[in-house]
Amino acid sequence: MVNFSTIAQQMRSSEIRRLMKLAADPSVISFAGGMPNNALFPVDTLDQLYASLSTEQKQAAFQYGPTSGYPPLLESLKTYLASRKLPVGDNVLIVTSGGQQAISLLSKVLLDPGDVVITEQPSFIGALAAFKSYGAELHGVPIDADGIVLDALEGVLTKQAGARLKMMYLNPSFHNPAGILYSMERRRGLLELLRTHDVCLLEDDPYSELYFDEADVPATVPIKALGSEPVPIAYVGSFAKIFGPGMRLGWMLAPPDIMEKVELAKQSMDACSATFTQVLAHAYLSEGKLPGYLATVRKAYARRASLMLEALGAHMPDGVTWTTPRGGFYIWVTLPDHVDSSDVFAKSLEQGAAFVVGSAFDPEGQRNNTFRLAFSHTPEERIAEGTEMVCRAVRACL
Amino acid sequence: MVNFSTIAQQMRSSEIRRLMKLAADPSVISFAGGMPNNALFPVDTLDQLYASLSTEQKQAAFQYGPTSGYPPLLESLKTYLASRKLPVGDNVLIVTSGGQQAISLLSKVLLDPGDVVITEQPSFIGALAAFKSYGAELHGVPIDADGIVLDALEGVLTKQAGARLKMMYLNPSFHNPAGILYSMERRRGLLELLRTHDVCLLEDDPYSELYFDEADVPATVPIKALGSEPVPIAYVGSFAKIFGPGMRLGWMLAPPDIMEKVELAKQSMDACSATFTQVLAHAYLSEGKLPGYLATVRKAYARRASLMLEALGAHMPDGVTWTTPRGGFYIWVTLPDHVDSSDVFAKSLEQGAAFVVGSAFDPEGQRNNTFRLAFSHTPEERIAEGTEMVCRAVRACL
Repeated sequence: MVNFSTIAQQMRSSEIRRLMKLAADPSVISFAGGMPNNALFPVDTLDQLYASLSTEQKQAAFQYGPTSGYPPLLESLKTYLASRKLPVGDNVLIVTSGGQQAISLLSKVLLDPGDVVITEQPSFIGALAAFKSYGAELHGVPIDADGIVLDALEGVLTKQAGARLKMMYLNPSFHNPAGILYSMERRRGLLELLRTHDVCLLEDDPYSELYFDEADVPATVPIKALGSEPVPIAYVGSFAKIFGPGMRLGWMLAPPDIMEKVELAKQSMDACSATFTQVLAHAYLSEGKLPGYLATVRKAYARRASLMLEALGAHMPDGVTWTTPRGGFYIWVTLPDHVDSSDVFAKSLEQGAAFVVGSAFDPEGQRNNTFRLAFSHTPEERIAEGTEMVCRAVRACL
Repeated sequence: MVNFSTIAQQMRSSEIRRLMKLAADPSVISFAGGMPNNALFPVDTLDQLYASLSTEQKQAAFQYGPTSGYPPLLESLKTYLASRKLPVGDNVLIVTSGGQQAISLLSKVLLDPGDVVITEQPSFIGALAAFKSYGAELHGVPIDADGIVLDALEGVLTKQAGARLKMMYLNPSFHNPAGILYSMERRRGLLELLRTHDVCLLEDDPYSELYFDEADVPATVPIKALGSEPVPIAYVGSFAKIFGPGMRLGWMLAPPDIMEKVELAKQSMDACSATFTQVLAHAYLSEGKLPGYLATVRKAYARRASLMLEALGAHMPDGVTWTTPRGGFYIWVTLPDHVDSSDVFAKSLEQGAAFVVGSAFDPEGQRNNTFRLAFSHTPEERIAEGTEMVCRAVRACL
């Protein structure tokens, strides 16, 4: 009999994983996974990038690279991040194996079992799982259409202050799962509040380039770009939504004292990220392929969002509300208090459509009168049909 | 001021990392890094593999995949592992982000701070770092030319028995750093011994295909392939030395109860390994490219080893011994007890050649009258010259 670690003894295959497996049936219209549709990937660009590689670059792609990242990619990433006003000079940049690894690495260097992490309520499943895998205690703070509710946050910060409060995790632009965009006022207010509290902010920002309307660009400036000193902010981004998740590349930009530990932790975690995909990502950035791809997918996701919003408006019964995304992949639906989204899920699956139930995103794992619809993955022509199935399932459960 | 986790507070940038940075000067002949030479990578094969991919495969390469691995790669890997007599039917296979991640994942699910891991003395730096990053206490057991010394192992197993002894880590074929190959007798003897002790064996096997002589093939059969029930063995392998480290792909084959936890741990660590390189690795295996590549590199490494052995025989002073590798990347040099390999390193670097000092490989970080020479990375024509520099440095320190 294997004698597992304390953490592993608490790991359980979640109900969500079981539901997600049901949703993987190809006949089901799935609004579950937060991923791009395969048809949206820049396959022709990839052919060009591959063709542009020299023998030396291909050889480098086969080789180990520095733990912190393939040096040319670090340079092209710095240029890109500087264009987004991020303070690359005063911070250290590292390439990670997806944003997920960045979250896991920061957790490893900050969290002891029993330490407290404040998150939004709801929050990203992968981050919640990473924090729990280091034994953290999670406290959720409500959000509204403009971001985290500052009064509520101040209450939690004050109550949790002390050695056990280590980290705060936020996803300010086109939030997963809620789909909201923090206003600039809320970003600045948050920063002011954090200046008087001793906590490290993990700003997770994979969606900010995926706005639907140019008018929203000013509000997508990262909190870390707002003159954040002396608040320690670890800024995490990803190629998953702007190139492809299968590259498994993300990054973290944070103060040197944090990054010294993060690099050592990464060295023992996977030595380095895939050099092969780092070489491709560097070519993608340095050959200027990103802006054109973003222009295409912004339109595609905007179209998908409006198809889903239209169907929700037409078919969802009274008493149900949902967010109106201004970018990203997600719509967040709130049912009347007494309705359980697991029941809606079961009925919806009978109809032939799937989504993720709300409790998956609750840091405390309780609240379930909510669910997340991802419009990013489903073929455009099936969005209206699938959304109508979900609405029928809701109606049946009211 | 950032309040780090207990583990992170203990993380220090090691002396070894400082020395390795010195060795990275391109004018230095480096026997330090355990990596293939860039000229040995199958670049033409990569071009063929890329050209053979369908649009659907490229799209899949951009996408997230299952945490356990890209399903076609899991199938082609199972076929390969079955051909090496590994029990794929009774175990669960998972693709990892290099062998390093497999070691880190198993550590995460087994080790609490203070738990005991038995390793060989000397042992692989990356594994030692992973175990320490989970707070493990390490105990080294001596090896001889045929493998771990069973009497010594039995003593340590008996002394450490109990809840705190969790894992044993071995690298039986073309050992890193010692270069030895466990005999079949030692493999069977080890398995017999483990049947009467309660410990999980991590068998790390990245080099076993790199034998120099067909006659040694029978001795490279993995311990896990020897009818290992009921000893729980997690078998770890890697594409690093048989395709390219930059693919960042390894695998772990272990009993279902362990793998259920490992998969959950991986999900929160990096969600999945790079799909892009998994698609390429699947093509590499399924299109039968591995045997031809292995035939080429076996000869290349055998030639490099004999060039280094020849130079050591000609120039190393009396009182110094070294192992004669029958495969893999490494030669392990033992100096007289009073000589410190850090002094030899400094002198050798003045000459223009580098290696890794022995204390890096000591689980207890003490012993330093040894060092590792890797013959895998240096251009063939510089091996004799560099080895002679190292020998001169040794002579100066005696």
